[in-house]
Amino acid sequence: VQAVVARRRQLVVEEIDDPIPGANDALVAVRACGICGSDLHTLDHAEHLAEVGAAMGADLAFDPQADYVLGHEWCAEVLELGSGSSDASIKPGDLVVSVPYLLRGEALIPLGFSNDLPGGFAERMLLSTALCLPVPNGLDHRRAALTEPMAVGLHTIARAGLRDGDAAVVVGCGPIGLAIIAWLAARGVETIVAGDFSEQRRALASAMGAHEVVDPRAEPVVDAWRRVDGLHPLVLFEAVGVPGMLDQAVFDAPARSRIVVAGVCMQPDTFRPLIAVVKELDLHFVYAYDPDEFAATLRAIAEGDVDVTPLITGTVGFEGVADAFTTLRRAEQHVKVLVEPGGPPTVTPTLPTRVDP
Amino acid sequence: VQAVVARRRQLVVEEIDDPIPGANDALVAVRACGICGSDLHTLDHAEHLAEVGAAMGADLAFDPQADYVLGHEWCAEVLELGSGSSDASIKPGDLVVSVPYLLRGEALIPLGFSNDLPGGFAERMLLSTALCLPVPNGLDHRRAALTEPMAVGLHTIARAGLRDGDAAVVVGCGPIGLAIIAWLAARGVETIVAGDFSEQRRALASAMGAHEVVDPRAEPVVDAWRRVDGLHPLVLFEAVGVPGMLDQAVFDAPARSRIVVAGVCMQPDTFRPLIAVVKELDLHFVYAYDPDEFAATLRAIAEGDVDVTPLITGTVGFEGVADAFTTLRRAEQHVKVLVEPGGPPTVTPTLPTRVDP
Repeated sequence: VQAVVARRRQLVVEEIDDPIPGANDALVAVRACGICGSDLHTLDHAEHLAEVGAAMGADLAFDPQADYVLGHEWCAEVLELGSGSSDASIKPGDLVVSVPYLLRGEALIPLGFSNDLPGGFAERMLLSTALCLPVPNGLDHRRAALTEPMAVGLHTIARAGLRDGDAAVVVGCGPIGLAIIAWLAARGVETIVAGDFSEQRRALASAMGAHEVVDPRAEPVVDAWRRVDGLHPLVLFEAVGVPGMLDQAVFDAPARSRIVVAGVCMQPDTFRPLIAVVKELDLHFVYAYDPDEFAATLRAIAEGDVDVTPLITGTVGFEGVADAFTTLRRAEQHVKVLVEPGGPPTVTPTLPTRVDP
Repeated sequence: VQAVVARRRQLVVEEIDDPIPGANDALVAVRACGICGSDLHTLDHAEHLAEVGAAMGADLAFDPQADYVLGHEWCAEVLELGSGSSDASIKPGDLVVSVPYLLRGEALIPLGFSNDLPGGFAERMLLSTALCLPVPNGLDHRRAALTEPMAVGLHTIARAGLRDGDAAVVVGCGPIGLAIIAWLAARGVETIVAGDFSEQRRALASAMGAHEVVDPRAEPVVDAWRRVDGLHPLVLFEAVGVPGMLDQAVFDAPARSRIVVAGVCMQPDTFRPLIAVVKELDLHFVYAYDPDEFAATLRAIAEGDVDVTPLITGTVGFEGVADAFTTLRRAEQHVKVLVEPGGPPTVTPTLPTRVDP
């Protein structure tokens, strides 16, 4: 089957071995798989990943210097079930999503970050039947593929420990920043102020529910919050993840506010702890989500509680993925680009379609 | 009156103008005033203080390039009350402590960090009568002078949001680390593991209630916790405050633990946010205390709920303060050195005396 293979820092379209479903696996055909910021980061900053294993007290099985197939935000169609999977709650023809792991005995193999099993930038892949969730309500495969990044947003909100009356500042309106805004709006947060350099992303922030949206070159985001509110306890969501953002957040945040770090900065970063001390800041670092949050996200999208349609700005076939990464590194025009087997050779804007109410 | 004047990075003993009590002030004679790590930091790293003002959105009135008198951990005897202070709850002859601020109209002047008013390394100083707390229970002036650093410890514990069953690791057994250990023990935390390079400080950590104490050169503190517990949710208290400690804490801490930053690192510091993200760490930065915590600390010391006696390792007169700073920078032999007007010319060990039960 065809796949987009990551080989050192390049992406090449190649034939890979057909995955063979084992007991409790499903063989699935990928219908769509989103490109995530962490895909870009992994390709660009692989050298920092080994330290994570050391810090977690375990060897990372994943070697980013060897070949792998990225992609952990998929929606796929079940083709066949491996032996021992007959009692699964899914059957061939079902559209499914799942948390991006494959169960192998006691181990969880992270799909999309594995040298042994393909991620979602492949025609076919293996999923654990026990982790698959059928897509409900006739939800289409594109919106269903947004379950994973939206689950990150839901988990981020949960980690923020929001209290009634809290105001929110969201720094960065990429997929995660916009997911955060969507959940903040769904939760009824009354003051959501967002900032991004890109005009298109700012427009999307408004569409997702931000009440005030600024270009940080014209007005710092926290200043904009002071202008429109300035009174309520503030939670600042850092959703950019490049060096220097955290120091800026610490410098800008009012005393006793909380900073929720959802952007993943791969490089070592420098900040001024003295300022965090004097302000008594809380920093909450956020990673992924739990399976309940993933399932709740799928339900919320399928029920129309959150509308992910505006986030899907483009689709692309395998041969256009490398260019799509380049486009997304500029963080200007696109938010979520979905890789679709058989899709267009270059990133093609998605016509806006709304979920029928 | 005599005082230890900080002039640029030097300490010199000089005559300063007699402070004149205004309305609502008390003129007091300092009986003892502890040397704090932040006194050393302020003298050594004054250049980083200006940024704090900018980050707080206010000019810092304090200019560390001009003369000032340090000292914010005093116990003093009331000499006279200024006009308008006749209804104060204190009278001449009372031994008092207070939070280190003077009320001036709407403003709070931080005593010990002011170019206009002397801190506690002076024979006499002014306090706000409204902020003075009489020392109860016949508590002596030396132990009463420990109210301020012990209040930092109490506030640190409160910021940690301890839950039943939490374990604690305390990195650094200076005054703040030992204060944290004392409160953790008073609260009944069942596993307290502490680390410090100094043998004397390690012995004090045991005396204050740590269950396991290690030299981090021989065994990392978190490894020692894994050896004796390793199961309970962990709160790691960083009580050193030099560059690199936070990165080490992030690297060592188990996933989903909380890091409470009580050490004040004055310089910019570098860490690896990717590791904090993958572990979903919470960082709580801690500063000072509120007046209720200060008052509760005084009561707890006076009632014998926490015994601060082991923390007081030396006393010194004004002419020995500069040497005392040098001794304390080595962080080996001493913990809390009290400056006493008329005290010995060099740092002199305090004979251990226990509070009678």
